[in-house]
Amino acid sequence: MTSLVGGLLGELAEVGRTPSGGYDRLAWTGADLESRQWFVQCADLLDLEVETDRNGNLWAWWHAEREGTALVLGSHLDSVPRGGAFDGPLGVASAFAAIASLRRDGFVPSRPVAVAALADAEGARFGAAGVGSRLLTGELSPERVLGLGDDDGTTMADAMSDAGVDPAHVGSEPERLARIGAFVELHIEQGHLTTADGAAGLAGAGAPIGVADRIWPHGRWRVELPGQQNHAGTTAMASRRDPLVRLAHIVLAVREGAIAAGALATVGKVRVVPGAISAVAGNASLWIDARADQEADVRRVLAHVRRVTGTHATEESWSAETAFDRRMTASLAAALGDVPVLPSGAGHDAGVFARAGVPAAMILVRNPSGVSHAPEEWVDDADCEHGVDALVTVIRHRAG
Amino acid sequence: MTSLVGGLLGELAEVGRTPSGGYDRLAWTGADLESRQWFVQCADLLDLEVETDRNGNLWAWWHAEREGTALVLGSHLDSVPRGGAFDGPLGVASAFAAIASLRRDGFVPSRPVAVAALADAEGARFGAAGVGSRLLTGELSPERVLGLGDDDGTTMADAMSDAGVDPAHVGSEPERLARIGAFVELHIEQGHLTTADGAAGLAGAGAPIGVADRIWPHGRWRVELPGQQNHAGTTAMASRRDPLVRLAHIVLAVREGAIAAGALATVGKVRVVPGAISAVAGNASLWIDARADQEADVRRVLAHVRRVTGTHATEESWSAETAFDRRMTASLAAALGDVPVLPSGAGHDAGVFARAGVPAAMILVRNPSGVSHAPEEWVDDADCEHGVDALVTVIRHRAG
Repeated sequence: MTSLVGGLLGELAEVGRTPSGGYDRLAWTGADLESRQWFVQCADLLDLEVETDRNGNLWAWWHAEREGTALVLGSHLDSVPRGGAFDGPLGVASAFAAIASLRRDGFVPSRPVAVAALADAEGARFGAAGVGSRLLTGELSPERVLGLGDDDGTTMADAMSDAGVDPAHVGSEPERLARIGAFVELHIEQGHLTTADGAAGLAGAGAPIGVADRIWPHGRWRVELPGQQNHAGTTAMASRRDPLVRLAHIVLAVREGAIAAGALATVGKVRVVPGAISAVAGNASLWIDARADQEADVRRVLAHVRRVTGTHATEESWSAETAFDRRMTASLAAALGDVPVLPSGAGHDAGVFARAGVPAAMILVRNPSGVSHAPEEWVDDADCEHGVDALVTVIRHRAG
Repeated sequence: MTSLVGGLLGELAEVGRTPSGGYDRLAWTGADLESRQWFVQCADLLDLEVETDRNGNLWAWWHAEREGTALVLGSHLDSVPRGGAFDGPLGVASAFAAIASLRRDGFVPSRPVAVAALADAEGARFGAAGVGSRLLTGELSPERVLGLGDDDGTTMADAMSDAGVDPAHVGSEPERLARIGAFVELHIEQGHLTTADGAAGLAGAGAPIGVADRIWPHGRWRVELPGQQNHAGTTAMASRRDPLVRLAHIVLAVREGAIAAGALATVGKVRVVPGAISAVAGNASLWIDARADQEADVRRVLAHVRRVTGTHATEESWSAETAFDRRMTASLAAALGDVPVLPSGAGHDAGVFARAGVPAAMILVRNPSGVSHAPEEWVDDADCEHGVDALVTVIRHRAG
């Protein structure tokens, strides 16, 4: 018999599914809207009160009438292109399943509890991540993001508007923020980052559940490589200014620099113009994603690239380390049975709320493949159940 | 005062012009259709009889009623993305200007003369070059190309059909081919390839006009690089299978191999999936364009890439050396005043007709920039006039 969390996720199994088996649920696309509809159905099933806030975030309230600040269990529903089945929806489905389980047991929370689906968290469509949560907290101004365009030239404002979210009302919501007393995000583990005890991820630690204590510092840089577009069949090798050759040197330097610095650095997106088989390219662009446990190590990667290739990379974004609430993380790890503590290499909505002063914490569920942002990411059914149990524990502790 | 050829080209100056100053006139797009309309207007101006053949090639006949096989002066109107102003249209406009000049002088040809604009010569939209001429000669079967799609998924058949060319009637036209007694293509020089006398192109030889005696052997290869899509912020450098890193090694090996072999080799088109800043790519593709004076040198480039990177490249096309009619080329060079003889690194419709047994030759007009398939290609006004004079000489010699 399928568990409730498995059943809820199963209802999403065909939404945005790609021929390769992955999922395309980019923000405000049809697949994202279907996922949001699923959220409403889940909430209806549990008799929770659904609300869409000014920034398009979804909230399902359990006993909203209770006094005090709310305990919010949240994650996201949107995905990267060709993403996996768990990144995002697992946290939302597990929260619904936890509430269902507590209600079956006759538990009534002492404060309001909400399940939240934060909008446009991955940022894969418009290039800005954590949009729904960062607009809410005021970390991001509407002016900075509403005009961003996707690959088809559709702006975020138009995409939100088509989805029924009025871009004119987007922006920070201090009162809503003040109502959040604690934010807990349950998420599939990504990669096998080293735990505080030195194990290679939860698989290495032999633990189904862990707690993240911080999000690594993280930056994105862009490199523009002008060249001279020319005919591939007539231009002497010596007279070429071929930006793709420079791009190749930089891709290799990024990898070398990351290994030398003990960081993670990646070129995952490139653009080559005009991109014709028979033309020496006229221009190339590439993006560098770099992260590490220490900011200095991230900076060393960029310094290596500059030294080896003479290339200046323009910083497009920088996020300093985000530490989750220390007391909350420690008591959470203890309550869950002294589970491993490890960092997160990826950004999360929980980090956004932590930066806004909300006591926030993260629960990670074991991913034996270590793969993330790809169809191969995986959580065993039994570990999904452990995740639901963890959220049950959280609710009992914090709203009991 | 502008010359006629300058004036004719001037009428095309805004057609398909891009903000960068280059031209997008890909086959069967609106800009290509406007260029074809311009062809009809030029022909009307000179009272030439316009005909569209079954493969969408345009013909403007001067004294079609004359006995004997035709002298055809032809080139193309379509461009590569962000191409220059001369590649293609110069040959067509010069042919019209030559006929205008001869008619002013009261010259009447002794055999039919035609100006031809061969369709989809660059092949930049659907990936197959010389489509109009190769369909006509039978070198290309309709089945092989009509289903090819452009970047938007439009098939060649649909694009031709929308332009009024019935794809059901596409195919070889032996009778039309048999009517062509000689084919001469005037074209802007591309690059500064070494002349038979060892000069660096026409600029190096100090000559406004030259004659091409052959087209280099030329191949295209494709490399598919599967990897493991993963999260850029969580996947250890040691556990990555990053196809973009392999791509970088190959790009550098292609360049090294070309330099070592004395060949020209280029990676100008790559595809990276999913192409997200924060994802280690799951798959990469690249295309290699390689040419040289000798086939063995082209093969050495690919052998180098295989040896250095362990990569197998799949041959997508191979064109052996095409020699133009030796007697015709020699007499043409002499008639034009012992102009330099040089190879062409690029394929041309004249080569297609040569391979089909038509006596064919090429006139090259000096390009001081050496740049080709880019906005910076250039022909001075005075050299355009030299080109028209050369075609006048050709017509007087071969249809006098």
